[in-house]
Amino acid sequence: MITIVLDAMGGDFAPRETLLGAYAAVEAYPVKVLLVGPEADVKAAQRALKLPDHPHIHIVHADELVGMSESPTQSFRKKKNSSIQVGLRLISEKKADAFVSAGNTGAVMTAATFVLGRLPGIDRPAIATVFSGREHSKVVMLDMGASADCRPAHLLQFAEMGRCYAQSVVGIDAPRIGLLSIGEEPEKGNQLIQDTFPLFQEKVANFYGNIEGKEIFLNKCDVVVCDGFVGNSLLKFGEGVVALFMDYFKGIRKTSILGTIGLLFLMGSLKKFKKEYDFEETGGAPLLGVDGVVIIAHGRSSQKSIKHAIRNAYQAVSHGMVDAIADAVKE
Amino acid sequence: MITIVLDAMGGDFAPRETLLGAYAAVEAYPVKVLLVGPEADVKAAQRALKLPDHPHIHIVHADELVGMSESPTQSFRKKKNSSIQVGLRLISEKKADAFVSAGNTGAVMTAATFVLGRLPGIDRPAIATVFSGREHSKVVMLDMGASADCRPAHLLQFAEMGRCYAQSVVGIDAPRIGLLSIGEEPEKGNQLIQDTFPLFQEKVANFYGNIEGKEIFLNKCDVVVCDGFVGNSLLKFGEGVVALFMDYFKGIRKTSILGTIGLLFLMGSLKKFKKEYDFEETGGAPLLGVDGVVIIAHGRSSQKSIKHAIRNAYQAVSHGMVDAIADAVKE
Repeated sequence: MITIVLDAMGGDFAPRETLLGAYAAVEAYPVKVLLVGPEADVKAAQRALKLPDHPHIHIVHADELVGMSESPTQSFRKKKNSSIQVGLRLISEKKADAFVSAGNTGAVMTAATFVLGRLPGIDRPAIATVFSGREHSKVVMLDMGASADCRPAHLLQFAEMGRCYAQSVVGIDAPRIGLLSIGEEPEKGNQLIQDTFPLFQEKVANFYGNIEGKEIFLNKCDVVVCDGFVGNSLLKFGEGVVALFMDYFKGIRKTSILGTIGLLFLMGSLKKFKKEYDFEETGGAPLLGVDGVVIIAHGRSSQKSIKHAIRNAYQAVSHGMVDAIADAVKE
Repeated sequence: MITIVLDAMGGDFAPRETLLGAYAAVEAYPVKVLLVGPEADVKAAQRALKLPDHPHIHIVHADELVGMSESPTQSFRKKKNSSIQVGLRLISEKKADAFVSAGNTGAVMTAATFVLGRLPGIDRPAIATVFSGREHSKVVMLDMGASADCRPAHLLQFAEMGRCYAQSVVGIDAPRIGLLSIGEEPEKGNQLIQDTFPLFQEKVANFYGNIEGKEIFLNKCDVVVCDGFVGNSLLKFGEGVVALFMDYFKGIRKTSILGTIGLLFLMGSLKKFKKEYDFEETGGAPLLGVDGVVIIAHGRSSQKSIKHAIRNAYQAVSHGMVDAIADAVKE
């Protein structure tokens, strides 16, 4: 049975949501979950939430915690017994198959890179996010924040890692790879993109060319490559746009009776939209390029997000994602 | 009376929408509009649209056109009599006050930089966009695509230009200036942002610090500074997110009767939302840093967008925006 390590105290709503998510996951998927964190705290949370012992849930003690705003490198050096490092060591020692955390993203990335190591041929890890697009299409975008400054060779590695993830986990047969730019023509973009374009033309199978931000959801590409600063900026801007829209809908309920009636009728459709596009459903994003399966969940993860992050970890392990990436980069 | 030059044949829906926009603008604002383009074509369009002669609308002949995908530098060198260059020369010769175009953005930027010249102290021009945020706030964001590769000194110039635009046109008294990054802390971001942060701390009055994409609409800053690649990527990604949402609403009408009834009730509220957030209302974005008022309208501009772009040009001229920027950068 596949064993997933969950950072029990990681995330804004831990341990409540992490524990509830873990219990939901073991009912839904054939996985064992190791809850890593201070044993007394985890047990206390279990009692408070009236969660019984479960044959597929175990606690692994780790007596230190990394705060959400702690420096990744300092916490790595000083807190060798943090839930993050204890959890990752279980992966490197082959005692478990994947690590899931909604805690400090930077700390998880740093620790994963040092504890698991990078795969041969990979210089920088990348975070991949899966978006839903038109016609129920899925698109993998990376890097969403692991590597802020990149060179063309790094983007090339991202392209291959994204292809493997799209194939082995998202289930896309021959992924079309796009390079995020601000115009279709090869000479558009900043220097990095202009230098990367000919490299992709030469080396990336199924290269679509440059793709603009407004086309990401239009099912033109299956994988979109960018540097981590641009990717993370986009992701957060998108969150901001959606939040603005949602705020507006909430405002309608206060000011317009007609609008409120309309919202009631729309409820079913809005829920479907939320289900398709919400990050809670996505669950978490894999950190690609390290020698192990690591899923980074959103800091504000609910129990549903945690459950789905565990599902993603399970899928990545059962599809042999890490080996697929290692093979692809070797070639 | 303030005289605005309009690129009559610029934009995907020209000359129909440009002409209708110009006629709407001269009724709404105290401006004269010079339609620049091939005289025969402009007159033919006037006749086809049954537009009468108007005392505040004149045609200025220009016999060449720049296509939407022509190279900016080549078109600048080869087409000295394009509507863009003829129009911009009217500004540099003080025969008119502002230039508005929905044509090839790159060609307008290049020509504006050469024909009008940059203001002293400005190395790179920047395009500024005004977004509506929470609580009816407005936020100026720049650069949205004029200068893809930037150094810290350029971002500093953008901050001062953005401040002037926010003060003199948007009407914000003491603008709070933010630096777009992927985390609040000074050490977050790519190398450019990390190098720029201390410079802003030292030199930018009312510096808010780093701001993330999801906070742009939350009325924390009045001006948000980024490089042109990131800004343009964000803008287009935002367009993509909104289009996806709108597509979804359109889909509801085909599949759900309850949802359709809901949409009917919501119509009024959705129209208000569109009015507040749609680019048609924004009209166009100023190209800041050149010695003249240049408004770049969206390629897909409707007559309403063109009318509002002319309004923006009128406001920038009447508020003395260019002098304000020149003064600010001199200091």
